[in-house]
Amino acid sequence: MFSRSDEKLEEEEDMGLQINALHLSYVVHVLGVVGVVMVLVWNISFRGGLAWSSSNKNLIFNVHPVLMLIGLIIMGGEAIISYKALPFKKAEKKLIHLILHAIALILGIIGIYMAFKNHNESGLANLYSLHSWIGIGVIVLYGIQWIYGFLVFFYPGGTGDLRRESLPWHVLFGMFLYILVVANSALGFLEKLTFLESSGIDKYGSEAFLVNFTAIVAILYGTFVLLTALSRAPDEDNHTYSAI
Amino acid sequence: MFSRSDEKLEEEEDMGLQINALHLSYVVHVLGVVGVVMVLVWNISFRGGLAWSSSNKNLIFNVHPVLMLIGLIIMGGEAIISYKALPFKKAEKKLIHLILHAIALILGIIGIYMAFKNHNESGLANLYSLHSWIGIGVIVLYGIQWIYGFLVFFYPGGTGDLRRESLPWHVLFGMFLYILVVANSALGFLEKLTFLESSGIDKYGSEAFLVNFTAIVAILYGTFVLLTALSRAPDEDNHTYSAI
Ligand code: HEM
Ligand code: HEM
Repeated sequence: MFSRSDEKLEEEEDMGLQINALHLSYVVHVLGVVGVVMVLVWNISFRGGLAWSSSNKNLIFNVHPVLMLIGLIIMGGEAIISYKALPFKKAEKKLIHLILHAIALILGIIGIYMAFKNHNESGLANLYSLHSWIGIGVIVLYGIQWIYGFLVFFYPGGTGDLRRESLPWHVLFGMFLYILVVANSALGFLEKLTFLESSGIDKYGSEAFLVNFTAIVAILYGTFVLLTALSRAPDEDNHTYSAI
Repeated sequence: MFSRSDEKLEEEEDMGLQINALHLSYVVHVLGVVGVVMVLVWNISFRGGLAWSSSNKNLIFNVHPVLMLIGLIIMGGEAIISYKALPFKKAEKKLIHLILHAIALILGIIGIYMAFKNHNESGLANLYSLHSWIGIGVIVLYGIQWIYGFLVFFYPGGTGDLRRESLPWHVLFGMFLYILVVANSALGFLEKLTFLESSGIDKYGSEAFLVNFTAIVAILYGTFVLLTALSRAPDEDNHTYSAI
């Protein structure tokens, strides 16, 4: 990527970065595993565990960050890079892309439900924070993006023209939404840790560091997801996205 | 942008979106003015005003969000879109680009200094939050990006090869950094409002709405800045970035 002949300079102008997407995708997988371990250690070892229903309402809340991180961020990220990271045919990768995004969406909806369940059973206010507003916006847009993609690119499928015109917007809007998802998880980690710190946990203690670094791992994960999506799949001559 | 003949389809593959960058840049300017007014109303009318030094340490803190929003976000955003939004020659736009970024950086450094000044004079801990960690990271990277850009693209200036190879990375890294800046301002707004709410202000009151909507205006501003940067300058045949 750093030494190319002049005749190849033209290529620089398209969306594909001159990096091997497959190599970047390994970084994504590793960061994903690290992030899952961190969020589980936090909520199970430090916060007392996860529960669907319990008299300890905090355990209900704990499901929220776990499902949001595993769902929207990690499954959603793997879905985004599936075209670049997998050794299958286009049609198979498309199916994997839409299934992974469906899983991400469902885990996201359940995760948000758990935040509401905790708030309602604890008598806390709903939907007052920036995090919750962006959260609702993001999950609604995620659903719309999924349905639009399904209808145009999968079944029944749009005309060739519609697909070609939709694709750059699907990619751009998908990346925009994914950035919002990752940023919103950082808002969530910060908000939760701020609550914990004002009820007494140490600002420089191990839990505080664990939470902040989990957020940083999520941001790095998201960064590598987008870099992978912008890079060149090693097995493709034409490395730009194709609409068919 | 929605009805093009097949022979123009090739163009879709490069970075330039088929939107008029100039029109988008008007949206940026308007959102910027709205954001400045909101952050000033918040800090002057609701938070008691701005001060360089005062026995009321809160007034020192108030300078922080004002300078971060006006500096890194608004000046930084205008700097990013200067190539697309201004009717001048390339060399002039380059000068404006680097001067606006220098102003953004200086206001950013002063703004961060004010947060530290408030913390030190009030006996509060420094650098414990995700917001502060990302904030330090962002300002250091902003400085490095500015110096690298200055040396390679302005003075003394790199070889043609170096410029061409640096440019896509300068653009990509610049966008990445700008996303982090905007996301970090959202973290700051959320954190400050959470402090205020735990010391008693109404979660659904007018100040809470003002702060949350200021954050949303900042996010919209950043979104339109990046859309403008990715769009096609109306007066250019070759709408991709050029390194010279
Ligand atoms: C990007 C993924 C996420 C989305 C879409 C999301 C969405 C939401 C929504 C819609 C609510 C409102 C619930 C209510 O009002 O009853 C909420 C609450 C909350 N979430 Fe998240 N969340 C995400 C990730 C996280 C993460 C990773 C954390 C880390 C701990 C977190 C922490 C919180 C906290 C503390 C609340 C309660 C306070 C509040 O309403 O802001 N969230 N979330
Ligand atoms: C993107 C631009 C911003 C950057 C780079 C930034 C950076 C920083 C840094 C480095 C600190 C640490 C000061 C210390 O430890 O003494 C800090 C503190 C703080 N900032 Fe910002 N800031 C930004 C925008 C904002 C905005 C818009 C707000 C909204 C009110 C805000 C609210 C806060 C608060 C409440 C603190 C004190 C608590 C803490 O240390 O996290 N910041 N900021």
